[in-house]
Amino acid sequence: MDVIKIALVGIGKIARDQHLPALSADPRFELVATASRHGSIEGVTAFQDISELLKAVEVDAVSLCTPPQVRHELAAAALEAGKHVMLEKPPGATLSEVEHLRGLAADKGLTLHATWHSRFAPAVEPARAWLAERKVRSAKITWKEDVRVWHPGQEWIFEAGGLGVFDPGINALSIVTRILPQPFFLTSAELHVPENRQAPIAAELAFKDAAGNPVTAEFDFLQTGPQSWDIDVETDRGALKLTHGGAKMFVDGALTHEGPDREYPGLYAHFAELIANGESDVDVSPLRHVADAFLLGRHTAAPAFDY
Amino acid sequence: MDVIKIALVGIGKIARDQHLPALSADPRFELVATASRHGSIEGVTAFQDISELLKAVEVDAVSLCTPPQVRHELAAAALEAGKHVMLEKPPGATLSEVEHLRGLAADKGLTLHATWHSRFAPAVEPARAWLAERKVRSAKITWKEDVRVWHPGQEWIFEAGGLGVFDPGINALSIVTRILPQPFFLTSAELHVPENRQAPIAAELAFKDAAGNPVTAEFDFLQTGPQSWDIDVETDRGALKLTHGGAKMFVDGALTHEGPDREYPGLYAHFAELIANGESDVDVSPLRHVADAFLLGRHTAAPAFDY
Repeated sequence: MDVIKIALVGIGKIARDQHLPALSADPRFELVATASRHGSIEGVTAFQDISELLKAVEVDAVSLCTPPQVRHELAAAALEAGKHVMLEKPPGATLSEVEHLRGLAADKGLTLHATWHSRFAPAVEPARAWLAERKVRSAKITWKEDVRVWHPGQEWIFEAGGLGVFDPGINALSIVTRILPQPFFLTSAELHVPENRQAPIAAELAFKDAAGNPVTAEFDFLQTGPQSWDIDVETDRGALKLTHGGAKMFVDGALTHEGPDREYPGLYAHFAELIANGESDVDVSPLRHVADAFLLGRHTAAPAFDY
Repeated sequence: MDVIKIALVGIGKIARDQHLPALSADPRFELVATASRHGSIEGVTAFQDISELLKAVEVDAVSLCTPPQVRHELAAAALEAGKHVMLEKPPGATLSEVEHLRGLAADKGLTLHATWHSRFAPAVEPARAWLAERKVRSAKITWKEDVRVWHPGQEWIFEAGGLGVFDPGINALSIVTRILPQPFFLTSAELHVPENRQAPIAAELAFKDAAGNPVTAEFDFLQTGPQSWDIDVETDRGALKLTHGGAKMFVDGALTHEGPDREYPGLYAHFAELIANGESDVDVSPLRHVADAFLLGRHTAAPAFDY
């Protein structure tokens, strides 16, 4: 297959830290241009606007690293111009706009890849395979981190639509929706919203899976000291533990899998395969669970939060 | 085709006021049993529990009129037992559970009908046909009613998951998603939540359609005096107005369509056709827009509300 000429849109921290190294190391892709209001990359043709880019440069695909609030318009423009599209997580600010992009890509025979980078953590596929052969009894997500360390000064995260603690929490949901053999459904949620903010700083979620087993999640943005990105699953034959956001897998306390971080290289490898096979991968289930939590959740006032 | 033996589950106000008369008048259906914690219907075999009903009586289909909070479990039980299922609106308490039911029905080759009764209001299909031949410039939903008149004492409507003013508002969204030729996406929302309640008593929504045109909605539960269930659509060739929840259609101010209320008979006629054709109709777009509004919306404190 020919090299895929790709443009990167939205040149911020995630583009520089993750997308660029992954693209540079993958011979299937050639980065030919960027579009970004403020950022650019040395040696790569830069535009401020995606429509200018699409007019001036021939590309096969566009990868969008902008905030979700503006992603729909950019993605729709790229698809309308006949380009394959890859979306950072979450794939949109609303479920309806992602549904529209899915339809647009299908109508035009293009690849749309709504990425969930945590699904490419090294222990996720081993966990999925292990659980596929067992009966799940319960699952528990514990996702507790210090927002001041991981999102310093990011005011947008606490604005309406910023998702708050669901910004990291959706990573956990993207893993659990991948590894659990049965779908699960929210039955109740408590969202702790600081009195000076719009988005929750902590949340407790209770789900039931299709067989009636409990799945719970605790999300906390105020965790100092040890940080937790853990998933515990009890089964009929042993207990599985994923730690470090899916990087390590333990069975009954013994380490069975670990590996280096290959999340973004994995995303681009998958994107290249999808394009080669003329397929799309648009699983909205993590974002749908978040929307369900906002739809069904009780709001509880939490103390004011400032960075 | 043989008569469809149907069971009605959840015998409350909506079952008596709407489902029973519609079923009685439709020769394609025979009501053979009910399941309800408290209610029953004279002359019809009554059960308290759906699993008892499914064991004791042979039915082809189940129509669920219970509150959405318990609907998923009942619907899943009916589908697992091989029955076609019809769901009152909204089809579930969460989007994820509706998705599960959709998959279950597809796997089993059964009909699932997620109903939106307002779509069967007499002027809705004429409006859809009229708009299909025009370019929409803008659309405005005005849905303002007095909650004390229409939902007297219904405390659940203001609880978490009760949807508040979106309980009637989702009817408007079910019409607009049906009649507008282009999909539309939420860009911002303001939810006014009484300080002693969990669900909004008023809301303003701003959407953009796929062509970039504005779609707005104003929902208000505190409207005394004249009530409004109106949709206004400006097009390149004339202005359309739907009033009375879709019962009347006006073009440039002149009445073009009106008719008697046939919403629930229409739902059952559609259900019978779906069963005959081996099809399902599960359009979650109205509920998805509501979830989007909770996901993206700003909460504003409103004065305490009591009936």
